[in-house]
Amino acid sequence: MPILPKRVTLCEVGPRDGFQFEEKLIPADLKVEAITALADAGLPVIQVTSFVHPKWVPQMAHAEEVVSRLPERAGVRYTGLALNTRGVERAHAAGLRYVDLSIATNDRHSLDNANMTVADAIEQAEAMIRLARAHGMEAQLGFQTVFGYAAPGDTPLDTVLDMARRFADLGLESLSLADSTGMANPAMIEERVQAVQSVIGDLPLVLHLHDTRGLGLANVVAALGCGVTRFDTSLAGMGGCPFIPGATGNISTEDTVYLLDALGVETGIRLDAVAAVSRRVEDFLGKRFSGKMHRLARREAAV
Amino acid sequence: MPILPKRVTLCEVGPRDGFQFEEKLIPADLKVEAITALADAGLPVIQVTSFVHPKWVPQMAHAEEVVSRLPERAGVRYTGLALNTRGVERAHAAGLRYVDLSIATNDRHSLDNANMTVADAIEQAEAMIRLARAHGMEAQLGFQTVFGYAAPGDTPLDTVLDMARRFADLGLESLSLADSTGMANPAMIEERVQAVQSVIGDLPLVLHLHDTRGLGLANVVAALGCGVTRFDTSLAGMGGCPFIPGATGNISTEDTVYLLDALGVETGIRLDAVAAVSRRVEDFLGKRFSGKMHRLARREAAV
Repeated sequence: MPILPKRVTLCEVGPRDGFQFEEKLIPADLKVEAITALADAGLPVIQVTSFVHPKWVPQMAHAEEVVSRLPERAGVRYTGLALNTRGVERAHAAGLRYVDLSIATNDRHSLDNANMTVADAIEQAEAMIRLARAHGMEAQLGFQTVFGYAAPGDTPLDTVLDMARRFADLGLESLSLADSTGMANPAMIEERVQAVQSVIGDLPLVLHLHDTRGLGLANVVAALGCGVTRFDTSLAGMGGCPFIPGATGNISTEDTVYLLDALGVETGIRLDAVAAVSRRVEDFLGKRFSGKMHRLARREAAV
Repeated sequence: MPILPKRVTLCEVGPRDGFQFEEKLIPADLKVEAITALADAGLPVIQVTSFVHPKWVPQMAHAEEVVSRLPERAGVRYTGLALNTRGVERAHAAGLRYVDLSIATNDRHSLDNANMTVADAIEQAEAMIRLARAHGMEAQLGFQTVFGYAAPGDTPLDTVLDMARRFADLGLESLSLADSTGMANPAMIEERVQAVQSVIGDLPLVLHLHDTRGLGLANVVAALGCGVTRFDTSLAGMGGCPFIPGATGNISTEDTVYLLDALGVETGIRLDAVAAVSRRVEDFLGKRFSGKMHRLARREAAV
């Protein structure tokens, strides 16, 4: 094994990236209960909602109410996703001190998804960053489909690196590389992560991985070998791929914690406590998500 | 990435390790159809059945009929699993030239599962190997629960190494290390595989991995880094864990092929052709198995 980081920080994105794919509306009460339990389970960062128009994502309709009801916890950061300046304003008004921004890196994806070129999206992202900083908020910028959109590797690495250089000096809290299509593989992770690391210097790097093709945790191991210490994960592996109906979702928080525990990498997260939240959400939705350890954890705790 | 093997040989174990967990009886016709299609898809080794008493595994009742109906294919080996000398005799009588034997390495497991100590199991395995060789058959010996039985790592590595030394000189075709409980992790793979490699010399090493805890493909990558070139996989990730009801099964053939393709490691296997078999079996059983690529392959082939 390469030398691994001693400690890794996970950001729980289930309440946003996981919940948003569900048709059955999850009431604010359950969202607040789940997020509170996740904070108590040791998740140091939780992306609690997105500030998008409820017409597009009905599940996120009561974003402000959810944020207003979250308990203060020492050492826990709540963040929200914003895709435009209106979203940044809402996140600020809701009282969040952290905001996650997101920008396309692949022209075909940007045109399909947001009907604008990457060049236009860059200008919009700069405006969002300026606005967040003017409000005194810390901003993470996420690059979308860094590892591929319609096919693995079809996002030009040169574009990603040019953008990373451009944004690295704008005072971001961190830069996130997203693989929402699940097209990364360990070799690509190593190539692209090391290339981005070489241009962003000390700016913290986050990986947002999906398990669409089953390579999620293999990609985590490859990234650990590159020294990556921050990952987004989702309870029970909730979530999906916006471009593949029915595809499995984000890498599972519980499975990732299990892997990191096994490798001796500290997270401060109690797997069994996260698993209890996952099973509560599964029961409410009447579904079983693709992660493994949220079900095994209970059985193994009982042994 | 470490240097990876140029080519890997997969053994499809779905028709044995996958099918045996299904309650709905799969008729011989469908078994023969599936195995034939897997051979045509490029699987170079297929474990087609086990020779166990149908009282214990009803799904394997027509082992001899299935073997008798398999087509000869150049470059394709059919093997069957035997757990005692009676099974070896049946495999030979059925006309198989390859037989897979299996032995416990963990006393608690051996007592729970076969009501004998590992010492007794070793004697039985030696008798099975002698018998197979007397019949002119090539024998693979599989070590069970090498990475843990009741808890990860609870099988003593010293026992595994003593047994590997003992069996390495008995004329085996290969030695397989099994993780049917899915308790391996990449660090343990590296430690235990390298230790076994150091005592078995040129005897080919096979890994039989399960994805019970989501680490299956991360473990494959770790094993590739150790130079392992043979893996057992199961179509669609069929299979289970004999000690965890409802747990997910073997690493998926399609997901493993996808990973190896992505890493530039040759298998000679056509993912889409395997996926077609998996979907046929899923349709017959009215179930969806935990692998990812057998469903995505169709969609992506259509793009």
